[in-house]
Amino acid sequence: MTPRPPLKLRLDGGALVANWNWLAAQSGAAACGAAVKANAYGLGAREVVALLSAAGCNQFFVAHWGEAAAIADLVPPAQIAVLNGLDADDPADVLQIGAVPVLNTPLQIARWKAAGGGVCHVMLDSGINRLGIGSEQLDETLFDGLDIDILLSHLASADEDVAQNSRQLGTFSDMARGVKSKRKSLANSAGIMLGPDYHFDLTRPGLSLYGGIARPEMVEHIKPVVQPQASVLQVRDVPAGSLVGYNATYETAAPTRVATLAIGYADGYWRGFSCQGHVTFDGQRLPVIGRVSMDLLLVDANTAPHLAEGDWVDVGFDLLSASALSGMSQYELLTGIGHRSERMWV
Amino acid sequence: MTPRPPLKLRLDGGALVANWNWLAAQSGAAACGAAVKANAYGLGAREVVALLSAAGCNQFFVAHWGEAAAIADLVPPAQIAVLNGLDADDPADVLQIGAVPVLNTPLQIARWKAAGGGVCHVMLDSGINRLGIGSEQLDETLFDGLDIDILLSHLASADEDVAQNSRQLGTFSDMARGVKSKRKSLANSAGIMLGPDYHFDLTRPGLSLYGGIARPEMVEHIKPVVQPQASVLQVRDVPAGSLVGYNATYETAAPTRVATLAIGYADGYWRGFSCQGHVTFDGQRLPVIGRVSMDLLLVDANTAPHLAEGDWVDVGFDLLSASALSGMSQYELLTGIGHRSERMWV
Repeated sequence: MTPRPPLKLRLDGGALVANWNWLAAQSGAAACGAAVKANAYGLGAREVVALLSAAGCNQFFVAHWGEAAAIADLVPPAQIAVLNGLDADDPADVLQIGAVPVLNTPLQIARWKAAGGGVCHVMLDSGINRLGIGSEQLDETLFDGLDIDILLSHLASADEDVAQNSRQLGTFSDMARGVKSKRKSLANSAGIMLGPDYHFDLTRPGLSLYGGIARPEMVEHIKPVVQPQASVLQVRDVPAGSLVGYNATYETAAPTRVATLAIGYADGYWRGFSCQGHVTFDGQRLPVIGRVSMDLLLVDANTAPHLAEGDWVDVGFDLLSASALSGMSQYELLTGIGHRSERMWV
Repeated sequence: MTPRPPLKLRLDGGALVANWNWLAAQSGAAACGAAVKANAYGLGAREVVALLSAAGCNQFFVAHWGEAAAIADLVPPAQIAVLNGLDADDPADVLQIGAVPVLNTPLQIARWKAAGGGVCHVMLDSGINRLGIGSEQLDETLFDGLDIDILLSHLASADEDVAQNSRQLGTFSDMARGVKSKRKSLANSAGIMLGPDYHFDLTRPGLSLYGGIARPEMVEHIKPVVQPQASVLQVRDVPAGSLVGYNATYETAAPTRVATLAIGYADGYWRGFSCQGHVTFDGQRLPVIGRVSMDLLLVDANTAPHLAEGDWVDVGFDLLSASALSGMSQYELLTGIGHRSERMWV
């Protein structure tokens, strides 16, 4: 018997698929893949891959080989690209998974050739200076004998309107000109919104699949996917002048109905939400008071006189506003979601 | 076959036990338990409980019943206290685990009596106003028929030298006077350092077991337990004036050897470390440059000319300084550690 946890993560599969469909439509003639690394940004890679595969997605991106192995029974493994590339000591150990490495360095390319080659992807660095072959590393023989499916690069600042975007577009186009590949791919979620020049053959959104707003023009179209819910452990009336929570950062100005909820920063509801966040119950917005604890959260329930032990509340987790309130990026809010929640796909 | 991840979490079991022994010694005549909730603050509850149990610890605290179930085969379940108390709808579902609930509210107490009672713990709220019976809820019959082992309360500000500590001590002592119990417990890690008045029969450190410095006087005594390590995916020389990482937050002032490491915020190395943190290799301190990515970290490796793909680096994670640099509390740094690392107890 596994006891049911006192908190849930409600995950909206319909919203996930709707977001992918919208991003695919915005991608125009390009195909649309999906970044499912980091356990699909914390949501659960197996459920996400199953849902998106059924919706028509046939190209998935993970970071690690272990992440590829975790989903390789759900889709043809050739549909899984491993962004770390051939980082392992022994390529044979990972190649039996059947996923396709994204080769990032001359050494990774040499390893791939030595291991017998076959279909691969290649990452070019067009200006983020993070991972991939730099223009100074290109030479006429580097790619000889490779069977390159996707030639990739990655945008540094697609969420901003800066000249770096068009510079990266130009650099990628220049670098790609001499390289034979079946497909080219540049755009992440934000990059899709930069227009058709950035789409090439394949886009690969991540954040916005999961409800993140990568650029302001997405606000009306991207649906929330993630909704944390917590149960009420205690409701107690305390007088005015009561100090609430760790380090007494909050003092009640009036008699206050304090509700104690079973969620905390160990569940990804960070201390940055202290005295900033809110939960909702029965249409009422209950503000977080005091400091978020590891396992517990305190809210002012004066406007919810019927709230009682055992009730469930929705924890405010709209990614844009939650990011502004907590100081954590939308990305961190997603990948930081803890593992004690019962994940419920609806 | 499970591919080995490109990052490790080195966990020092000797340091964990040494920290518990030191905290037990500081607890004087009181016994010393261990808070192992939230998967032992992210380290791994099963390994921590096994190590501390072997060292002589015989009282463990978890938050959820699921956390109790996960360790109930390692120690006599009666040694496990569940801080959430009887939050489940059906006490029978959880009671077969054999762990002991910490009853926090009159309703939880009533449930416990209705379920047949037996040994329990009780939480009194002495001024944190978070979880536990308030002084206004005490009446002569509330505890009738309970067989209370530990009577607990929790300090709000034990890491500060403030009057709230002695006020809570006084309130707890007053409230406890009329309640029959076998043992009393008030002090967390920081509370242990407030002196013998705060120790009662049992202390229950958490943070400092795992290397956290709950109060300055611990610095010389508490040993680090957690050391993240990441592998090098790429080393590349870029010219002066190169923009590095997302949103170009860093520009190289000189030709720079950029090393790309397989760790990011999805692994609990938060964006707050951007341009702030460091890693070490071969005695050299390599500063983090640019923004921390989800799966990747960039460092300036100019002082490590021999650093190469496949090497491993230690990621700077001294909890006190890492907390100051990243803006995340020591607690969040621990519980936020991700699940992609290979956990290696040494």
